[in-house]
Amino acid sequence: MRLRNKPWAGEFIAEHSDYAISNPENYKGKWHEVFGNQNPIHIEVGTGKGQFLAGMSQQNPNINYIGIELFDSVIVAAIQKAVDKQLSNFKLLNVNAKNLTEYFDQGEIDRVYLNFSDPWPKVRHAKRRLTYKSFLQMYENVLVKGGEIHFKTDNQGLFEYSLISFSEYGLRLKYISLDLHKSDFEGNVMTEYEEKFSEKGQRIYRVEAKYMNE
Amino acid sequence: MRLRNKPWAGEFIAEHSDYAISNPENYKGKWHEVFGNQNPIHIEVGTGKGQFLAGMSQQNPNINYIGIELFDSVIVAAIQKAVDKQLSNFKLLNVNAKNLTEYFDQGEIDRVYLNFSDPWPKVRHAKRRLTYKSFLQMYENVLVKGGEIHFKTDNQGLFEYSLISFSEYGLRLKYISLDLHKSDFEGNVMTEYEEKFSEKGQRIYRVEAKYMNE
Repeated sequence: MRLRNKPWAGEFIAEHSDYAISNPENYKGKWHEVFGNQNPIHIEVGTGKGQFLAGMSQQNPNINYIGIELFDSVIVAAIQKAVDKQLSNFKLLNVNAKNLTEYFDQGEIDRVYLNFSDPWPKVRHAKRRLTYKSFLQMYENVLVKGGEIHFKTDNQGLFEYSLISFSEYGLRLKYISLDLHKSDFEGNVMTEYEEKFSEKGQRIYRVEAKYMNE
Repeated sequence: MRLRNKPWAGEFIAEHSDYAISNPENYKGKWHEVFGNQNPIHIEVGTGKGQFLAGMSQQNPNINYIGIELFDSVIVAAIQKAVDKQLSNFKLLNVNAKNLTEYFDQGEIDRVYLNFSDPWPKVRHAKRRLTYKSFLQMYENVLVKGGEIHFKTDNQGLFEYSLISFSEYGLRLKYISLDLHKSDFEGNVMTEYEEKFSEKGQRIYRVEAKYMNE
C-alpha cells in the first residue's frame, strides 16, 4: 500500500473516537458493552481503508466488526466510511495487531478476518506473516473455542504458506476456493485491492480454517 | 482417458507375469519378498500407461513401486515400459483399487501416489473420488504409521475437495504447490496427462499429506 503522509490524520482519528476507539486496552473483556449488545464480534487484522469491513457491517447488522489498522494514514479512510454510513456495529483500532491480547479477552472474539495481508516473501521475514504460528497462537488466545480464521489473498506464495501453517498448527480447513470470483461462494465483499486485482484477471484465493480446541 | 478395446490385452498381461502380478492376494504381507529386498514400497493408485511410475522407478532404484490399474487396455502400456526398461523395482497389479487391503498388509506400504485421478465432478459421485474419506481410511490400513499421500492434478475442483477431505480426516498438509511447473519443486516426473495439460499452459496442483497416527 502506498502511504501518503497525512499530518492531519492524528487529529481526525481523535475527533472520531466514537468509531476509532482510543485506549482500547481499557475495553478488554468489555467489547459487548461497547457495542451495547451480545452479538458476535468479528475482527479484521489489517483493515486498511476499510471497504471490506464496512461492507460486512452493512451486510450483517447482527454482527459487530472491529478493524485493526496500524497506519493512521489509511485508517482515516475507514473512519470516514463509518461516519458516512453511520455504522453502529463497526469500530476501528489504530494499533499494532501484534498485541491483540492486550485488547481482547480469551473467547471475546468469534472470528478473525485476514485479507490481502502483506506476503513478506523473503523466508527470513516469515515470522511477520499474519498466518505465522505465533499469530495463530495469538488469535487462539482471543477467539472462542472452535473459532475461525477467514483468509483471502491474491498472493499464491502466501496462500500456499498459510495452508501449510494452518495445517501444522492443527487448524481444520473448512472451505477452500482457488479462484474465488469464479466459484459459487456467495456474499463476498471485496476489498479495495481485490477489486483492482480481479479486474486484471488475477485469481483470488480464499480459505476458512477452524480451531479444533472445542 | 480414451480406452480402446484391446482384445489381446489379457493375453499380453498373462505373458508378462514377472511385471504384472497375477493373484496379488497371494502376496499380501510378502511384497518385500517379491522384490527381494527391504526397500520402501510406494504404490500409485490409477497408474494408467505408467509413465510416472516407470520414471520414478528409474529415478529411485532403492524404492519399490507398485502401480494399480483396473483397465487392461492401458496397463499394457505400463507393462511394455517395464519390459523395455527392464525395471526390477516396478510391478503392476491389474485390479480394482477399492480392494487394496486384500493385497497389502497394514504397514506394508510407505507412500501412496495419486495422479490426475478421475475428478467425478458431480456431488452424488463424491464417494468415487480417490480422496474421499473411505479411500483415505483404506490407504491408512495399508500404510506405515505416518505414511504419506502425494497427489497432483490439473483439476481445480478435485484439488479443493481433496485438501478439505485430507484436513477433515486429520491428515497434516506438508507441502502445497498451486502451480507446480512454476515452483521450485525438484525431481518432478510427469504423467502422460501432465505433459499434455502443462503444454497448454494449465496449472498443475500438488500436495503432500501425512497421516498423524504415529
